[in-house]
Amino acid sequence: MSKLIFCYGAMNSGKSMQLLTWKYNYEEAGYKVFLYKPAMDTRGSFKDGENKGVIASRAGLEASCTLVYEDETFSKYLDKINDPKTIIMLDEAQFLTEKQVKELYQISLKYTVVCFGLKTDFRQCFFEGSKALFELADDIRELKTVCACGKKATINARINENGEILLDGEQIEIGGNERYKSMCKHCFEREKNKKM
Amino acid sequence: MSKLIFCYGAMNSGKSMQLLTWKYNYEEAGYKVFLYKPAMDTRGSFKDGENKGVIASRAGLEASCTLVYEDETFSKYLDKINDPKTIIMLDEAQFLTEKQVKELYQISLKYTVVCFGLKTDFRQCFFEGSKALFELADDIRELKTVCACGKKATINARINENGEILLDGEQIEIGGNERYKSMCKHCFEREKNKKM
Amino acid sequence: MSKLIFCYGAMNSGKSMQLLTWKYNYEEAGYKVFLYKPAMDTRGSFKDGENKGVIASRAGLEASCTLVYEDETFSKYLDKINDPKTIIMLDEAQFLTEKQVKELYQISLKYTVVCFGLKTDFRQCFFEGSKALFELADDIRELKTVCACGKKATINARINENGEILLDGEQIEIGGNERYKSMCKHCFEREKNKKM
Amino acid sequence: MSKLIFCYGAMNSGKSMQLLTWKYNYEEAGYKVFLYKPAMDTRGSFKDGENKGVIASRAGLEASCTLVYEDETFSKYLDKINDPKTIIMLDEAQFLTEKQVKELYQISLKYTVVCFGLKTDFRQCFFEGSKALFELADDIRELKTVCACGKKATINARINENGEILLDGEQIEIGGNERYKSMCKHCFEREKNKKM
Repeated sequence: MSKLIFCYGAMNSGKSMQLLTWKYNYEEAGYKVFLYKPAMDTRGSFKDGENKGVIASRAGLEASCTLVYEDETFSKYLDKINDPKTIIMLDEAQFLTEKQVKELYQISLKYTVVCFGLKTDFRQCFFEGSKALFELADDIRELKTVCACGKKATINARINENGEILLDGEQIEIGGNERYKSMCKHCFEREKNKKM
Repeated sequence: MSKLIFCYGAMNSGKSMQLLTWKYNYEEAGYKVFLYKPAMDTRGSFKDGENKGVIASRAGLEASCTLVYEDETFSKYLDKINDPKTIIMLDEAQFLTEKQVKELYQISLKYTVVCFGLKTDFRQCFFEGSKALFELADDIRELKTVCACGKKATINARINENGEILLDGEQIEIGGNERYKSMCKHCFEREKNKKM
Repeated sequence: MSKLIFCYGAMNSGKSMQLLTWKYNYEEAGYKVFLYKPAMDTRGSFKDGENKGVIASRAGLEASCTLVYEDETFSKYLDKINDPKTIIMLDEAQFLTEKQVKELYQISLKYTVVCFGLKTDFRQCFFEGSKALFELADDIRELKTVCACGKKATINARINENGEILLDGEQIEIGGNERYKSMCKHCFEREKNKKM
Repeated sequence: MSKLIFCYGAMNSGKSMQLLTWKYNYEEAGYKVFLYKPAMDTRGSFKDGENKGVIASRAGLEASCTLVYEDETFSKYLDKINDPKTIIMLDEAQFLTEKQVKELYQISLKYTVVCFGLKTDFRQCFFEGSKALFELADDIRELKTVCACGKKATINARINENGEILLDGEQIEIGGNERYKSMCKHCFEREKNKKM
């Protein structure tokens, strides 16, 4: 039976890579896979001054995807489909609106929907999309990555150019390793207290 | 290293039973286990017109626990403790306040804290405590139970005396099998649509 | 669809308790649950000089079960059943023969079969039943318990009356905490080396 | 603390891809990663008539690794190392000998060792390496892939050029999608019975 799956993980936990692996496996099993990404995310996507819609893993693979804007619904893409061997996959799903996640929940009564995304922002608060996904997903899985100390990293710390932890700022600031660092809570709280 | 663990599951997934099992195992390994429950929960606890503080599994076991009120902190219980072989366990953790969960997160830098509770209410929205626990826990685990159809149940449907699904009402209404039914989303949405 | 599930865990990981919880939940969902245990296991079962067939959790619950002898098949119990709402559960499944596990695999094409048992003996070698279950189960889950050091225990160390680790002896020797101790590999290897 | 981790999965579950993702993440966290593969596996590795030692994911990534022969030990590679930020990773670990797995277990008392491999052969029997890894690993994780029917695939069926299931032959026969097919047990048993 179809499911709504949310695979969450800190930055650099290999979410895009896992997504591209699953896509590959589903296609080999004869499925048609639809890939989406909120347009808000621009990493790896910008070419010639334009957000082209690409899901790219840092380790090297990539695939084209459809960009979804905040005010869009998925129905315009999926209404015409009537094939049980259909899978919907999304990357950077933390940037979905609550309304979009509710639509994906409805779609998941018919087709399996697999969302990949962050759990929380740099202050350990939910993004709008991840909150709704944790509420509505019937299957929640963690992708793990490692803190510099060797323990599992669960926190997306925002850092400045000197690698110092930042506690203020906008919730969303698109960036990679120059801007964020995956840490375990023990190292994160130690660093935070040093600063204060 | 110490962790903040959240074990979530639908009603009747055996959360209290699992808690009592872990308590037993930790005590055998030489740990001192502190048990708490938000005072808001009164199931199994009321005796002689008073909420006595009991964690009871429907299948038969029980243990005394300390009741925690909404405006209370844990520090008054735990400040004097200085033994690394200490574990803190909570049942019905969905009823904690956000502030209490943040305190537990701080405590978990020193001692492992294991919370058991529901993920969402009868409308698939977070409780205050479960939202904060999903944000802050560094280890999130699901306890599974089964829908009447055989699939995993993820939804706590509120029902009336005729077993019909209710969609309106207060978020919190303490009750057991006469008031709630664990269902998978496929059965839940089918029932809901019948009603409409 | 029906599955063959193997829930393994070290001694004192709450396997019998988990089994009794699932039984309770399945029965509430309208299922008929068949309980079995290899007759070789006698813990909690002996009454009046006879193995009566009881699955008992150390923390307090118990249920009657059918004892299965080494040369028996399950078909004599299950051939007459023709109800999709049937579940088969087994405790101490490490003591099954390979042939019995293969029969359970065939049964699991029709009904879900849930086996609980140890992974390995006191020398970290498979039991006959657990080897076959790891090979044939389509769902393998770990129940966790804790070493005295706080880490996950994975090894069932056999000990003598002074708590010293034993490395020789028969594979099967029925016993509880006076005879076995759940340990992590770091503590186990340290203790072993002390001895040598 | 260091662990021996075994990540098992049917063919095409993305094991090599997951390995390369973890390698990438560990290196970003400042670890030195040592990659090995049993020389018996030749897929993706042969170049100019020689097994060069390459871990290649079908979806596109690859990395060089050290080939390990059946009669070799790991100590010759690892004895000189004395850096806690060391990780050992192996692909196709089902082809290890029992003796080699026991050596890796000893190494894992000091450094984390992560093995990726198949659980069982085309007749659902353990390989020598996977049997020993299931016995000795302190962390066992499944990588999932999908059967053509949409359920989780757990069986590596060997097929002939017409896609028909083969039940006889040598345990080890190196091959890819032209030789093996990942299936769930329901589809596998149905196909098998058709043949008989």
